[in-house]
Amino acid sequence: MVRRDEFDLISGVFAPLARRHPAALNLADDAAVLPPPPDGQHTVVSVDTVVAGVHFLQADPADLVARKALRVNLSDMAAMGAEPVGVFLSMALSPAEDDAWLDRFIAGLDADLGTYGIGLLGGDTVSTPGPACFTVTILGHVPPDAYLSRGGGTVGDDVWVSGTLGDGALGLKLLTGALRMEEPDMAAFLADRYRVPRPRVDLGLALRRVASAALDISDGLVADLGHMCLASGCGARVDAARVPLSDAARRCLGDDPTWRDLPLTGGDDYELVFAAPPGRAASVQEIGVRLGLPLTRIGCLVAGQGVTLVSEDGTPRPLGTAGWRHHW
Amino acid sequence: MVRRDEFDLISGVFAPLARRHPAALNLADDAAVLPPPPDGQHTVVSVDTVVAGVHFLQADPADLVARKALRVNLSDMAAMGAEPVGVFLSMALSPAEDDAWLDRFIAGLDADLGTYGIGLLGGDTVSTPGPACFTVTILGHVPPDAYLSRGGGTVGDDVWVSGTLGDGALGLKLLTGALRMEEPDMAAFLADRYRVPRPRVDLGLALRRVASAALDISDGLVADLGHMCLASGCGARVDAARVPLSDAARRCLGDDPTWRDLPLTGGDDYELVFAAPPGRAASVQEIGVRLGLPLTRIGCLVAGQGVTLVSEDGTPRPLGTAGWRHHW
Repeated sequence: MVRRDEFDLISGVFAPLARRHPAALNLADDAAVLPPPPDGQHTVVSVDTVVAGVHFLQADPADLVARKALRVNLSDMAAMGAEPVGVFLSMALSPAEDDAWLDRFIAGLDADLGTYGIGLLGGDTVSTPGPACFTVTILGHVPPDAYLSRGGGTVGDDVWVSGTLGDGALGLKLLTGALRMEEPDMAAFLADRYRVPRPRVDLGLALRRVASAALDISDGLVADLGHMCLASGCGARVDAARVPLSDAARRCLGDDPTWRDLPLTGGDDYELVFAAPPGRAASVQEIGVRLGLPLTRIGCLVAGQGVTLVSEDGTPRPLGTAGWRHHW
Repeated sequence: MVRRDEFDLISGVFAPLARRHPAALNLADDAAVLPPPPDGQHTVVSVDTVVAGVHFLQADPADLVARKALRVNLSDMAAMGAEPVGVFLSMALSPAEDDAWLDRFIAGLDADLGTYGIGLLGGDTVSTPGPACFTVTILGHVPPDAYLSRGGGTVGDDVWVSGTLGDGALGLKLLTGALRMEEPDMAAFLADRYRVPRPRVDLGLALRRVASAALDISDGLVADLGHMCLASGCGARVDAARVPLSDAARRCLGDDPTWRDLPLTGGDDYELVFAAPPGRAASVQEIGVRLGLPLTRIGCLVAGQGVTLVSEDGTPRPLGTAGWRHHW
């Protein structure tokens, strides 16, 4: 295996990426040093780890692995209404990741740092005999008291979601061979939705002081909306028929009832689910038009607890599996 | 294997620890939110990952694993002259870490959060089939332009180290059976130095505007001082006989020339190596007395590059192995 050592990696590979932000100190020191955020803003920090074979497939292209690791964290910034500033990348690399793999990983990272206008501020590189493990720590800024939380929802608020749901989970089923579809374009669309999430950073920024509560859908709509209910001290009623589907997802689900719950319970969508008072519905719709992103009202917050799914006729719409409380 | 799920872990185990700092938002949200540091201070951020079987021994007591993971990061704050504020902990747990292991890990983490007066601000918990992997992201504060860097050294500066060197590396040799010693107290001292580093946080704070350059010794004195030389654009001459040794290390090295280079090349000491102009020697010595921590002048920065080791008579003191540029 050809593998650069840690010092060559830092000076040759990471330092050029770190030039995007002065706080990285060119990765020449033990830590990054960040000046206070402008205008008294607060700093929002989140950490996520992805493991080869667990959160991505060992055969996934390395550039897409990097972009997913980054985008999962950007999605946390979106959920908080924060403007992303920069990331720290800690990598535990196994013998499976040689220099060629790493070059492709770095290319993907570099591309997305550019796409989202953020810096690589620091990190760590170690070796592991086990599967590779990537931990991204992300920092962002938000004005005082403007961050979106899970706990701000009130009974009577509308519940909205961005984009379409189930695409990521269906994409994973396609990639692992559990599901097949004949239309290559649609299959490619779904696989891409699994591999390269679209963190809704601009939507998070637009929802500051519009949404009462928000989070991103990583564990599935029912699970994540359940978190909002728990934090907000209420329940939610969701009209399952209103949950927005892509054409590709509709095509998959039309053929086979096996996966009909995936838009409700499948993870990896990284869309936002948020609550807003009914009086702000017009503002929400304007934001959707401005961003070119479908925003769909799927239900409302209600007294009680937990998420209740109903069919179009108002009758309960039970899930096929209990599946929303997952073991890790 | 008995294992709580992720939600039980967050609410039952981590949330109580997170009460130490309001920025954690009780771990109920997607991220932590930190107000701007007081007095226009800057934020210092560092990330380190430790892997089971690589950075600690699988058989190490879990509480000590947690404390080491935390202390390695605190050492980076010490190296920067920063005051630690809080940490994020991301854990990839393997089947080897059951609930009992995790309880002990958390107890160690809790104890050291208390010892160092810092908060648990957030994190992530995922599963891995491979060895466990812990990533700690640490945040600290430092006044503008007061942080210690590797690159501030000047030819003529004295080179100092804190504490004693080689203890961590000798402790590891003892724990792995590569080295034996008959004195149980001394063996326990060395093993403890490997397992529970003493990050020199107070020293880092005291060295603000006193030291011209600093870093912590994690890869070994010669390697880390080499980093300072590279960043400062100069070389260093070290009188090998002045490198401070503990009684236990002296006892080991006296018996057997095999390990005589370990105080110079062995990692895991987490002492600070720093440079200071000769005119500040009295200030440095006062700091050592005040902190009850030996500070030893071991050489000086010189024109040229790299680290030159000399014996007491001024002749070159070659290392037995090239060993300072390690592959990870």
